[in-house]
Amino acid sequence: MDAIIQKRLGLKELESKIVTADEAAALISNGDVVGMSGFTRAGDAKVVPMALVERAKNEKFKIDVYTGASLGPEVDKYLAEAGVIRKRGPFQGDAGIRNLINSGDVLYVDAHLSHNAELVRQGIIGPIKHLILEAVAITEDGFIIPTNSVGNSPIFAEYAENIIIELNISHPEALVGIHDIYVPAEQGKREAIPMTDAMQRIGDIGIKVDPAKIKAIVISEEPDAPSLIVPPDEETQTMANILLDFFRDEIKAGRLTKQLMPLQSGVGSVANAVLDGFADSEFEDLVVASEVLQDAVFNLIDAGKVKFAAATSITLTEELQKKVYGNLEKYADKICLRTQEISNHPELIRRLGLISINTALELDIYGNVNSTHVSGTRMMNGIGGSGDFARNARLGIFVTKSYAKGGAISSIVPMVSHVDHTEHDVDVIVTEQGIADLRGLAPKERVPLIIENCAHPDYKEQLWDYYNRAVEATGSHQTPHILEEALSWHVNLAKNKTMKKEVAKA
Amino acid sequence: MDAIIQKRLGLKELESKIVTADEAAALISNGDVVGMSGFTRAGDAKVVPMALVERAKNEKFKIDVYTGASLGPEVDKYLAEAGVIRKRGPFQGDAGIRNLINSGDVLYVDAHLSHNAELVRQGIIGPIKHLILEAVAITEDGFIIPTNSVGNSPIFAEYAENIIIELNISHPEALVGIHDIYVPAEQGKREAIPMTDAMQRIGDIGIKVDPAKIKAIVISEEPDAPSLIVPPDEETQTMANILLDFFRDEIKAGRLTKQLMPLQSGVGSVANAVLDGFADSEFEDLVVASEVLQDAVFNLIDAGKVKFAAATSITLTEELQKKVYGNLEKYADKICLRTQEISNHPELIRRLGLISINTALELDIYGNVNSTHVSGTRMMNGIGGSGDFARNARLGIFVTKSYAKGGAISSIVPMVSHVDHTEHDVDVIVTEQGIADLRGLAPKERVPLIIENCAHPDYKEQLWDYYNRAVEATGSHQTPHILEEALSWHVNLAKNKTMKKEVAKA
Repeated sequence: MDAIIQKRLGLKELESKIVTADEAAALISNGDVVGMSGFTRAGDAKVVPMALVERAKNEKFKIDVYTGASLGPEVDKYLAEAGVIRKRGPFQGDAGIRNLINSGDVLYVDAHLSHNAELVRQGIIGPIKHLILEAVAITEDGFIIPTNSVGNSPIFAEYAENIIIELNISHPEALVGIHDIYVPAEQGKREAIPMTDAMQRIGDIGIKVDPAKIKAIVISEEPDAPSLIVPPDEETQTMANILLDFFRDEIKAGRLTKQLMPLQSGVGSVANAVLDGFADSEFEDLVVASEVLQDAVFNLIDAGKVKFAAATSITLTEELQKKVYGNLEKYADKICLRTQEISNHPELIRRLGLISINTALELDIYGNVNSTHVSGTRMMNGIGGSGDFARNARLGIFVTKSYAKGGAISSIVPMVSHVDHTEHDVDVIVTEQGIADLRGLAPKERVPLIIENCAHPDYKEQLWDYYNRAVEATGSHQTPHILEEALSWHVNLAKNKTMKKEVAKA
Repeated sequence: MDAIIQKRLGLKELESKIVTADEAAALISNGDVVGMSGFTRAGDAKVVPMALVERAKNEKFKIDVYTGASLGPEVDKYLAEAGVIRKRGPFQGDAGIRNLINSGDVLYVDAHLSHNAELVRQGIIGPIKHLILEAVAITEDGFIIPTNSVGNSPIFAEYAENIIIELNISHPEALVGIHDIYVPAEQGKREAIPMTDAMQRIGDIGIKVDPAKIKAIVISEEPDAPSLIVPPDEETQTMANILLDFFRDEIKAGRLTKQLMPLQSGVGSVANAVLDGFADSEFEDLVVASEVLQDAVFNLIDAGKVKFAAATSITLTEELQKKVYGNLEKYADKICLRTQEISNHPELIRRLGLISINTALELDIYGNVNSTHVSGTRMMNGIGGSGDFARNARLGIFVTKSYAKGGAISSIVPMVSHVDHTEHDVDVIVTEQGIADLRGLAPKERVPLIIENCAHPDYKEQLWDYYNRAVEATGSHQTPHILEEALSWHVNLAKNKTMKKEVAKA
């Protein structure tokens, strides 16, 4: 056996379990519920799923796949397109499986990421037949060390009948020690989560299971699919500046200090750009407590702005991944990977007072946010952790450009076509046009702020026209709407390729 | 001074603060933000607000009123109709103020009840000029003892500049000792809430403030407005039985035990009837951890079914109030009144694994729930605590009759006209027709359960017709809808007084 494998496989009794990916894949049967590691294309099982793809060429079978969050193409493109996935949860972000979800070929259970563990405990997700878990090592004392994400793997490992390990030796051994695995007991028999500071470690360095559950170990060198975020553009830069000015105002008002509060920032380019904006700012000693650490966080650590960053996954562009993996020792005491149950736990988000920044697909004049469904029907990615954070954060911020498709779509509409975050959960909205601070305001007080500060100039008049007529029509109800027209902007878009009214009339 | 007043006013230095209601009301100025005690028409300030109503006959002034939850008619009818209330939060349930909210005369900030305390700490609600607080006593060591609700009074007391006490001697002194007041510190500086069992007491028997803040004490004998719940009818009885059978099935499946988990049941007749259903059941040693204790809970204590019940308010019908107040000693070690921040805290709801039962106004074929807005625009009561509980509960149940207005309205519609609880937060739906267990299901899997098990027979065909055409029109998207038609049932209702399609055509 390779020296490197011998070194990574500390628990010697497991050496006999080393098999090929095909042999491991053969353990999986039609109808199985399969848990897989992976969160935002990081730390996902890859070689066993690809062996399943091969197997599917000669055999018809289907499985249910539950993960931490989105996976790379091995599962969410190739395995899905091979027709192997019957049901998928709780999050995805790949065009391959997305198309199958929106054609009725794959059932998709889009769920709050902090809820999954409870559903596993109750057996609503499950019984889990197999967990396929990418690991960087198994220590002598039997800790399975995940790679660059934790996600739901610890709770899957606790409840799964069998565990298949993908021992991925392309990840550096220096990852050992950065994980902090804490799994609450059953509801009603559980202690308070013993964390009062986002920088605290409260658990183990890895996942402890009965070694007899480990049925196969496959050696892998497959790298993660790299992060797909695009660099900041002028508009995301503007949004970042608007947000920084807002934080400055909050400090002046005595509601925040220069260290702010632990920051959560959602997956994606806008959120990443917003974080990037801190690099040249006066803010310091920042702490990140998020679900995913993207490039910006490591740049902020390098810049001395962020002193600690915890999440459940690290998703980097290829270039930054090389840099971070080459200097992991430098970051080791400044980063920490937790389970998604902990990174997204309402108990901790509320206690620690997080500032949360997530991306909206569209929002309405009253502050309701759609973050999942294009035109109300077509699933984009999923709600992910945005609900966990927005609902419980000290400050729940949503960011979006005010328009899409070159101006044919207004991100601000009379009524969102699908609601993921209600008016009660949205504190602040930022577009490249400006900011609307909705805290403490009644619906009708929010309207002028959202239209005047955040909507694209092309749509302001049209929004005011709708609102004024809705007030008139209802006699100024709590939330004025004209139900015949509330979704007409989306209908117009489908028919005339634009939300602009003049074009519809023409 | 009356002996009874002397006895209730333990802190003797406060005797000089006793004034008339008019004198106390004179302390309040135009533009003030005023906190008031009271939650579900229990423990609310009454005589000072009525003095404000008198004052408003000769003087134009407006104030913002924040409370625990809904108040009796003194504030939410008379004070509102006197034109004194500019803004109101976070909950109401009176036709008087409701009409003013829906005519644009009163601004209404409908909010999650667990969120208010954080907003007070941040100064988003505030600065609070006065708190008007109904108390049953002030002890020698300076604890202000609220009457039959706690609500937001402790956090208001901490942040208010002035406190006006309504010392209500019609409440029995035996209330002293049933409160358990625990107020978390600021976010980021806070410990875990030290409760791992719903029966635990973690705080003080009353509210401690700097006595210098108490600017006036008014003696009152005004009783609370009695609870308005109506007795169970055949249909609510049926819903209760369906729910009990569901719990039995959960026990068989190993997901619950005969003690169930701590029960939360929302305000209202349906929820009360469901609880009543436990009286003749085999369930025992039940614990209630709710926001309000209605008649049913005391009946269940009497029947030996409930061993402990905690909430933030006790709201009883006149008859039961007499019985309970006459025997308070009997209940003293079995009940407990907490702040609404604690009764509704996500941290505790999740940790303790609550079963939550709340009322829906309408719900859609995918499981989204509207619990606040009639036809999407007109505010009914508010979201109250339903979001705190449904989101974080182990089991989030919504109950509603399948129809309203004699069948002209279907409570199950293609798309709800307003969303308070998204598809991600609704586990189980119960109508008098049956039950839909939505846990772990994708949107399209939920549809047949909701239509077949829960919809009224008069509307099943019409719902299937919409759904089937929506699947066809979208090519089976994640959440099929026809946006032109999604809200047409409400439009039909407005135009033709019915959601039935045939009538619309006729």
